[in-house]
Amino acid sequence: MAGVQSDPHFFEGTEKLLEVWFESTKGDDSFDLRNIGRLDWEHLLRIVRCEIISKSSSDDMDAYVLSESSMFITQKRFILKTCGRTTLLLAMEPLIRLVTEKCGDHKVVDVFYSRKKFAKPEQQHKIHRTFEDEVHHLDQLFKNGAAYTLGKINKDCWHLYMLEDVPGVKDPDQTIELLMWNMCPEKMKIFTKEVSEDGAEATQKSGIIDIIPGLQIDDFLFDPCGYSMNGILPGGYYITIHITPEPHCSYVSFESNVPQESYYDLVHKVLGCFNPEKFLMTVFSNKISIAKESHKHFEDLYRLKGYKRKDHQFCAFQNYNLTYTMYTRPII
Amino acid sequence: MAGVQSDPHFFEGTEKLLEVWFESTKGDDSFDLRNIGRLDWEHLLRIVRCEIISKSSSDDMDAYVLSESSMFITQKRFILKTCGRTTLLLAMEPLIRLVTEKCGDHKVVDVFYSRKKFAKPEQQHKIHRTFEDEVHHLDQLFKNGAAYTLGKINKDCWHLYMLEDVPGVKDPDQTIELLMWNMCPEKMKIFTKEVSEDGAEATQKSGIIDIIPGLQIDDFLFDPCGYSMNGILPGGYYITIHITPEPHCSYVSFESNVPQESYYDLVHKVLGCFNPEKFLMTVFSNKISIAKESHKHFEDLYRLKGYKRKDHQFCAFQNYNLTYTMYTRPII
Repeated sequence: MAGVQSDPHFFEGTEKLLEVWFESTKGDDSFDLRNIGRLDWEHLLRIVRCEIISKSSSDDMDAYVLSESSMFITQKRFILKTCGRTTLLLAMEPLIRLVTEKCGDHKVVDVFYSRKKFAKPEQQHKIHRTFEDEVHHLDQLFKNGAAYTLGKINKDCWHLYMLEDVPGVKDPDQTIELLMWNMCPEKMKIFTKEVSEDGAEATQKSGIIDIIPGLQIDDFLFDPCGYSMNGILPGGYYITIHITPEPHCSYVSFESNVPQESYYDLVHKVLGCFNPEKFLMTVFSNKISIAKESHKHFEDLYRLKGYKRKDHQFCAFQNYNLTYTMYTRPII
Repeated sequence: MAGVQSDPHFFEGTEKLLEVWFESTKGDDSFDLRNIGRLDWEHLLRIVRCEIISKSSSDDMDAYVLSESSMFITQKRFILKTCGRTTLLLAMEPLIRLVTEKCGDHKVVDVFYSRKKFAKPEQQHKIHRTFEDEVHHLDQLFKNGAAYTLGKINKDCWHLYMLEDVPGVKDPDQTIELLMWNMCPEKMKIFTKEVSEDGAEATQKSGIIDIIPGLQIDDFLFDPCGYSMNGILPGGYYITIHITPEPHCSYVSFESNVPQESYYDLVHKVLGCFNPEKFLMTVFSNKISIAKESHKHFEDLYRLKGYKRKDHQFCAFQNYNLTYTMYTRPII
């Protein structure tokens, strides 16, 4: 995504990730976020400072590739992931107003806002400069906000804001994220116009095509470099990958809500595609997800495929289990 | 400990807790922190802004009740816990110099600095005002520092600074802390001169005497209110309790390194003595401690004796497991 950066020397690949779950207060089955039109989404995304590049759809979901990352809309769930200097949290209130206007009375039943520590926080808009700033903004909108930092606050860490005392879960839900940095330069070359013609070629060459079979893929290769892809499956499942390949600020994110009892094989496949020096993994799974015990497969993995574990934390929230784990390749 | 506070309207019961493990670099068996004399400790404690009230000893440990909390010295381990507006971290460098001077060449093999979020951080010395300030100070002394915050940073949380990439463990080690606040006013009255004559009477009346049997107890009741106690057992084991009973800022801390496979019964006994509205528990146990699986006894305890769990986090560090859990009585 270097093509859209404003500072030629640095691009903040690290995304801000927002997931909001809505519910009609009238028990209205016709409540559907997909009734919101493209122009309205474009207007919302202007506030965030990004735009739509392309759209793909299944019966259960609309998936958008953006100039800075991705957006996924299902009936009740809104996901927006944006990198660079985007101002994601400025869209929180306008989003709620937009949903009221277009879908009718509703309540926000769950919110998850998360991100890795920025490489250069000082380059962010003031609403995003520190996690405390972000929490302060969100706390003005939500009384029941709970803010956590996992990992080492003086080294690598990951921030999370969510709601507590929310309704119990009705459907299984799970999300895995792998955030990788200090990437293998050889692998990263694939995601430049020098080496690959277009998104499809990069998807093939890198092995991304094989991570999860059967996906409907929407991929995009930026000029001169950078890559984004959304892959969707029936049932509202998705994967999304975003790549900043420049050697001095290389970064890759992988995210998916595809349910798996163990994410061990998936993690191996993703690492194989990108070969990062460092990565962190988060797994969210609610108490009725088949992934709810998936953290146990990583509990004793002090070493994993040439990596050394630097942190492993587990949180038992009201509805969700969360695992945070961070690995690095030992310096030889 | 209200007797020693400088602001009559508020006392910060929340302690700063420092534990440092030393090792002779010469493999010298005569290395012993207990060779440091009382005058030297008094000098060190002046930097922290507290003083020694009394001392008790066993073959393995010297235990001091301080004007603000406690200090425990064994051959290689230094523990200092101080409340109020004390400046504990100012003593870190002088401590290392003192150990060099009196005990010879050594290395610091492990450091744990922790505290709950202060009720009034603005009243602290600038070195302690924010956790970031504390981390900054410690990072200047240690290259391998790792700083964590457990719990909700926008509500109740607990900070920890420790070292990573340290030598493997040789001996079992474990520490449980229960930090309690919004205490039952009836129970707190016991820790005032109005109701109890002295420390021994308060220890009896409150039930503290029965928490762990067989202790050598050194207890102190402050005038007009406030209570501190150290209890020691052979083998370098201790418990320590500190009480700020004033209703508007009531706070109690319990800490012990007594090994137990499960701390479930101990927690019940402690809660029974004080009846707090809120408490957090931390359990540290290294990989050869009998307490290393003790977190499993709390994993599914969403409710405990009329309390509702608000947070439960588990960290697998290199040598230690750490459980953080926080409970509150539901508002009816």
